[in-house]
Amino acid sequence: MHNFSFHNPTKLIMGKGTIAELSKEIPIDKKVMITFGGGSVKKNGVYDQVKTALARHNTVEFWGIEPNPAIETLRKAIELGKKEKVDFLLAVGGGSVIDGTKLISAGLLYEGDPWELVEIGSSTNTVPLATVLTLPATGSEMNNGAVISRRETKEKYGFYSKHPVFSILDPEVTFSLPPHQIACGLADTFVHILEQYLAKAGESRVMDRWAEGLLRTVVEIAPLIKENQQDYQLMADFMMTATMALNGFISMGVTEDWSTHMIGHELTALCGLTHGHTLAIVMPGTMHVLRKQKEAKILQFGERIFGVVTGTHDMRIDETIRKTEAFFRSLGLTTRLSEENIGTDIIDEIEHRFNERDAHYGEDGLVTGAVAKEILLQVL
Amino acid sequence: MHNFSFHNPTKLIMGKGTIAELSKEIPIDKKVMITFGGGSVKKNGVYDQVKTALARHNTVEFWGIEPNPAIETLRKAIELGKKEKVDFLLAVGGGSVIDGTKLISAGLLYEGDPWELVEIGSSTNTVPLATVLTLPATGSEMNNGAVISRRETKEKYGFYSKHPVFSILDPEVTFSLPPHQIACGLADTFVHILEQYLAKAGESRVMDRWAEGLLRTVVEIAPLIKENQQDYQLMADFMMTATMALNGFISMGVTEDWSTHMIGHELTALCGLTHGHTLAIVMPGTMHVLRKQKEAKILQFGERIFGVVTGTHDMRIDETIRKTEAFFRSLGLTTRLSEENIGTDIIDEIEHRFNERDAHYGEDGLVTGAVAKEILLQVL
Repeated sequence: MHNFSFHNPTKLIMGKGTIAELSKEIPIDKKVMITFGGGSVKKNGVYDQVKTALARHNTVEFWGIEPNPAIETLRKAIELGKKEKVDFLLAVGGGSVIDGTKLISAGLLYEGDPWELVEIGSSTNTVPLATVLTLPATGSEMNNGAVISRRETKEKYGFYSKHPVFSILDPEVTFSLPPHQIACGLADTFVHILEQYLAKAGESRVMDRWAEGLLRTVVEIAPLIKENQQDYQLMADFMMTATMALNGFISMGVTEDWSTHMIGHELTALCGLTHGHTLAIVMPGTMHVLRKQKEAKILQFGERIFGVVTGTHDMRIDETIRKTEAFFRSLGLTTRLSEENIGTDIIDEIEHRFNERDAHYGEDGLVTGAVAKEILLQVL
Repeated sequence: MHNFSFHNPTKLIMGKGTIAELSKEIPIDKKVMITFGGGSVKKNGVYDQVKTALARHNTVEFWGIEPNPAIETLRKAIELGKKEKVDFLLAVGGGSVIDGTKLISAGLLYEGDPWELVEIGSSTNTVPLATVLTLPATGSEMNNGAVISRRETKEKYGFYSKHPVFSILDPEVTFSLPPHQIACGLADTFVHILEQYLAKAGESRVMDRWAEGLLRTVVEIAPLIKENQQDYQLMADFMMTATMALNGFISMGVTEDWSTHMIGHELTALCGLTHGHTLAIVMPGTMHVLRKQKEAKILQFGERIFGVVTGTHDMRIDETIRKTEAFFRSLGLTTRLSEENIGTDIIDEIEHRFNERDAHYGEDGLVTGAVAKEILLQVL
């Protein structure tokens, strides 16, 4: 175990009908800006529940935070928030709405152009923010991270601010999600866990078992969700797994990777592929190319999650990678770049971008431009 | 999954040499009262590390918070703290020192006799409190609970206040702990997990697997710790397991029991037995008497922790109870009341006390005075 500091002050409010608790969780004297995505919340009843709960509050709405929230959109939200003298933010949506609102929360108290905040990488001078989650996937509802895009330059970078003050998770809001979003959410969750787990073996028994507990949950619920997306218990398990996968609970004192994410972000920025989907494509490639460095942990992963126990180490690793890819395909996702009409030109551009910023990602800093290219060629 | 609200704002600072971080974690303008137990911290170097870190702070010391902290002692600490106008508390010790300091933190801002706070059961009007943990066991370093005793009446009750602001956990402080304290700490941890796990089956896949991850860790590390209590990695696993066992991370949305604790508290109050030891004695009795209500979960526990999979349900439950008791004995603890010279007079007194307060403990409220008696007779 490495030395670590863990602090997650987000209050998690989870269960059926919990959106109504907004009325007492947000101080009545606050001027609240509610941020939304594209409008699905008007169809599934979430919007009505939020408005009913906040009927006595002073609110203003901002609509249109898109998937992979763009600075171009967020600038408008910050402008509106400043004009309206907003002092509380409520993000109602999935990871993109929440991520975007994290930048808004810092931008409201920042005088310059908010893209500067993304370039700096963090700010804790923020307006308090809470969330109503509508799509389990990114874990943004219970961490302090965000990923912000810039359309004009096709860039996508991480940004860190404060944790949400509270987050409301009602599993019933997931009943009407499109199957592709569910699939991407499950893949996103699965790879979040792997990024924190599939690095060094033997660092923490507790973190290993907790990560494995989440991985086994995802593998167990994925086919069941396909059969019945309206099963409350099942969707509650999904929602909780997605949140616990990226709130710091499984990364205490252990080495993390995150190179798959860095490559995936480029695929989204350059080709528009959904985040979770990029991870499903890249992860088997990362496992293959870094099989020596990750050997002990891949063997443990294969044994404890997929029951892979026979053969030489190399055979077990191959079988584990095969089963990982098969799991992603079972979700209904493609797992090869060529299936998404992505070719070597994009791979070359990613290598170029990595080299330009002298990238050394992953637990040992081994993922350079050349290694990223190797990984992507592996999953072409 | 039941609806739930989870909020744990404690900052956890864990690792080698982390006591030094006190200097920057406690604001320099605070008047700090440091609370201690009996003096072992002067032998193992913890006292020196704390004093060095706080050399520039304005501090006052209170010594002598005993195991099962007594209101008689805590009154004196509150008196000193009021006189010294203390506005920050640092508990340096195990669960008893931390529990006692939680009552002090409320008592400092309370005008009446602090036992009234215990009778009320909670107070969140408190002076901020932080901890340096020296004995992994109770989980008090990362929750808002405490158990306070009253010597004159041999009473012991729960009290709830705020979470510690931060807690520092350096695994090296455990290297010199007496083996009996380690054994009781492991038993305490194991039963904390079971109180949150061994109730209803099928409520949450994530919580089940996380609880099982902690249980398996305890079973795995216990014999290794006996062999080498100076193994940093091992003691880090122990310390983390004890904290994670009672910080709310494994009880989100699931039914809890806690009847074994209620019976155990009486055994400590009446006979002075160490808390963790009482739990090791009572738990197998609880499992035996409530085997029907807990059937599905005992079967799952037996299978996933001890590999008990053959025979009828009744045979598997018997074998699981046998293995649970054997585990406690493997720690070096006795598991029968008669081994501690506790007889039917004490059992009758506990039945009487339960009846007097019309007790209905456990997940279904089934543990009355009569059932408590049955449980205790089972482990006589």
